[in-house]
Amino acid sequence: MAAPLHAFQAPKGTRDLYPIDAARRRFIMESWRSASIRHGFDEIDGPIFEHLDLYTVKSGEAIVSELFSFMREGGEKAYALRPEFTPTLARMYATKANSLPRPTKWFMAGPFFRAERPQRGRLREFLQWNVDLLGDDSPGADAEVIATCVSMLQAVGLTANDVRIKVNHRSALAQWLESRGLPAPRHAELMTLLDQKAKLPTGAFATGLAQFGFSPEQAEVFEKGIIRITVDERGPGGAPADSVIDMTFFSQAVTPLAHQLVAAGIIDWIDFDLSIVRGLAYYTGMVFEVHEAGGKERAIAGGGRYDHLIELFGGPPTPAVGFGMGDVVLALVLADKGLMPSDAALMEKAGLRPDVFVLSTGEPEADAQVRPLVAALRAAGLHARHSYKATKNVGKLLKDASDIRAKTAVIIDSATTALIKDFATGEQVGPLPLSEVGKALTAAP
Amino acid sequence: MAAPLHAFQAPKGTRDLYPIDAARRRFIMESWRSASIRHGFDEIDGPIFEHLDLYTVKSGEAIVSELFSFMREGGEKAYALRPEFTPTLARMYATKANSLPRPTKWFMAGPFFRAERPQRGRLREFLQWNVDLLGDDSPGADAEVIATCVSMLQAVGLTANDVRIKVNHRSALAQWLESRGLPAPRHAELMTLLDQKAKLPTGAFATGLAQFGFSPEQAEVFEKGIIRITVDERGPGGAPADSVIDMTFFSQAVTPLAHQLVAAGIIDWIDFDLSIVRGLAYYTGMVFEVHEAGGKERAIAGGGRYDHLIELFGGPPTPAVGFGMGDVVLALVLADKGLMPSDAALMEKAGLRPDVFVLSTGEPEADAQVRPLVAALRAAGLHARHSYKATKNVGKLLKDASDIRAKTAVIIDSATTALIKDFATGEQVGPLPLSEVGKALTAAP
Repeated sequence: MAAPLHAFQAPKGTRDLYPIDAARRRFIMESWRSASIRHGFDEIDGPIFEHLDLYTVKSGEAIVSELFSFMREGGEKAYALRPEFTPTLARMYATKANSLPRPTKWFMAGPFFRAERPQRGRLREFLQWNVDLLGDDSPGADAEVIATCVSMLQAVGLTANDVRIKVNHRSALAQWLESRGLPAPRHAELMTLLDQKAKLPTGAFATGLAQFGFSPEQAEVFEKGIIRITVDERGPGGAPADSVIDMTFFSQAVTPLAHQLVAAGIIDWIDFDLSIVRGLAYYTGMVFEVHEAGGKERAIAGGGRYDHLIELFGGPPTPAVGFGMGDVVLALVLADKGLMPSDAALMEKAGLRPDVFVLSTGEPEADAQVRPLVAALRAAGLHARHSYKATKNVGKLLKDASDIRAKTAVIIDSATTALIKDFATGEQVGPLPLSEVGKALTAAP
Repeated sequence: MAAPLHAFQAPKGTRDLYPIDAARRRFIMESWRSASIRHGFDEIDGPIFEHLDLYTVKSGEAIVSELFSFMREGGEKAYALRPEFTPTLARMYATKANSLPRPTKWFMAGPFFRAERPQRGRLREFLQWNVDLLGDDSPGADAEVIATCVSMLQAVGLTANDVRIKVNHRSALAQWLESRGLPAPRHAELMTLLDQKAKLPTGAFATGLAQFGFSPEQAEVFEKGIIRITVDERGPGGAPADSVIDMTFFSQAVTPLAHQLVAAGIIDWIDFDLSIVRGLAYYTGMVFEVHEAGGKERAIAGGGRYDHLIELFGGPPTPAVGFGMGDVVLALVLADKGLMPSDAALMEKAGLRPDVFVLSTGEPEADAQVRPLVAALRAAGLHARHSYKATKNVGKLLKDASDIRAKTAVIIDSATTALIKDFATGEQVGPLPLSEVGKALTAAP
């Protein structure tokens, strides 16, 4: 049967992971995982597809066009590939709320799907790390979640000069807007404008803000006026904002958080940025995004406090704060800054460097011992490889062993004995009995 | 908005993984991964959904009803959630065949999907481990793949008394059937009968075999007559089969494999079983299934040699052998035999046991140091936790630390000092300066 050609390509916006790609994925997944664990989060996960209704509960019908959705043949229910984790997390928390610890600290990392046009930094299938702290409404919880994010960025070599954590406070923004006479129903409209800032042509953002009664100077603060939070614990401040924007509400909301960010040792990473509001409607307090410092690429991560969401999914009133980070933008930023480990380092981090490469001097009785010895070494827990080539040239085989970065080579030189060569030291020991090779290798430091 | 109740449950046949479930998943995934790596396989992966056509190429239109398939809105192409990995692997190998090593040894472990009725041992979303060796047509390659499977089973505590590797040879069976006058076109029909053996009512199997000209004695060999492969390297044998079935073709095909299974040290795990043919049409040589020794549960794993499949996906002629193992039956077998690690052991294996629990003696100046110290310890790479409770009762907090199996507790007793308690030894050191706590903890053995 002749198959259509497209069957022989990965679907648009998805990835085939050959060994080096899989090692790169593992590097990112393990970096996410270990930062989570260091900060006391427990791993969870949910189904890769959910009832479609789970997503419309939170985001309305508009989200359906962004989803890969399907019906079970002959079935009555529609499903969708998960585009985000929060609804699953909310359902899982709501189901067991009574028996879960307070706070509950959960993370997960896995595949997600969006039926959007693939572009730089955005694929149809991607990985996302989710970190959530539920049942604690304190600024300490906000800071702990941000610190988990910073810790991961730091572990992969990024500094506060490479990336910035941009923080704002949704309820402070709402209070300030109300104090200037902007009624609550118009806030959502303004937030949408703020969230689209980066995508608007020059001038359009200021024009848009003018319609909400903002002066050009105030529009400039929203557009460029990032306010560094001072480390003197008096909370956020800074001349450019103070002069044109009343910071009272922001100071009240952000000062306790600033204290906690100082305690967490990450205040240097933080910018207070009035324009960061996050697109999603459900945030209630602190919101943040992680951006490359020079404004390159889309956001690396984003999140915030969502104190009403668990109720929406049938659970008890539960304060909650969390964030998500995708792998695609992160990998672009790491590559751009030369921080993606080399292929050899990735393979080693993924545990793929062979412990031992077994070869023989070529005599039939030595050759016959290669596979049994390899089997014995693997049974002893070692990553053991051997050559599949016909060549009996020991020099060539040793080069093959060194090319795949094996730590040692075992050269079987008779039916009963072998030599061990350590590639790190260049030392060679033996001949020793085949039965002692495993012990000699596992005893090595 | 009131949401339909089903939105608040995981879809039928899928799983919510709370922390202990995620730790159990990790235990299985890591067991798969480390057996693969010990045996020199490299990790790969592909998209979680593929073009629907990729599956019909191999399995025909009949497979469509078993798939979760969907269209992109307004799109022209149909997609399906992957039900198995082999077509993706074949596509990936075919695409890069010229630049890949010979042999190419690949493994992957991840989620797969079947739109079938969930039942014991079968879910709609499940995990599967795939191990494939391409470019080597030798019995050594067959044995290496089987050995990788056995090594994993052994690593989780299963023995040759718990599970059996049932091996047959498709081309030997075909040769024998032809020698008895059964034409090739009827072979597929017979294989379907053999593959359904376990599901047929008593008597129906023998009746079915009679239609192919088999005597009741021969039918009995197919039904019960497992033939132990003798370890004396003369290949498979055994009275029950010898007497009623001409073993010539099987001996020729299986003897070289038996030699390799002896060399791999796993001959004790192997039964030669004429009835194992595997349902899939594409196997060309050795086939095997892993079953619980008492016949409980579905097959734990299955695979074989498929020397023509890479060509079907547009690649060069490439011999190949591999197998797949799901997590659902494996977990049932492990639980049944008491081999699933305890919750505490699973959490420890998953790296979730805290290194340190930080508390204070309750004075405000000591309390103020809890979060900064926790942050510093996490920055030093430690898994550090602290209490979120209001209690200042040191005894209660130490009990909380011990309940979550923290290795140590740090008790901050002033603005500048702390004590360290080691739960394993019961020893307590200090007071020492807060700045030295991290060093003291990371220096510990």
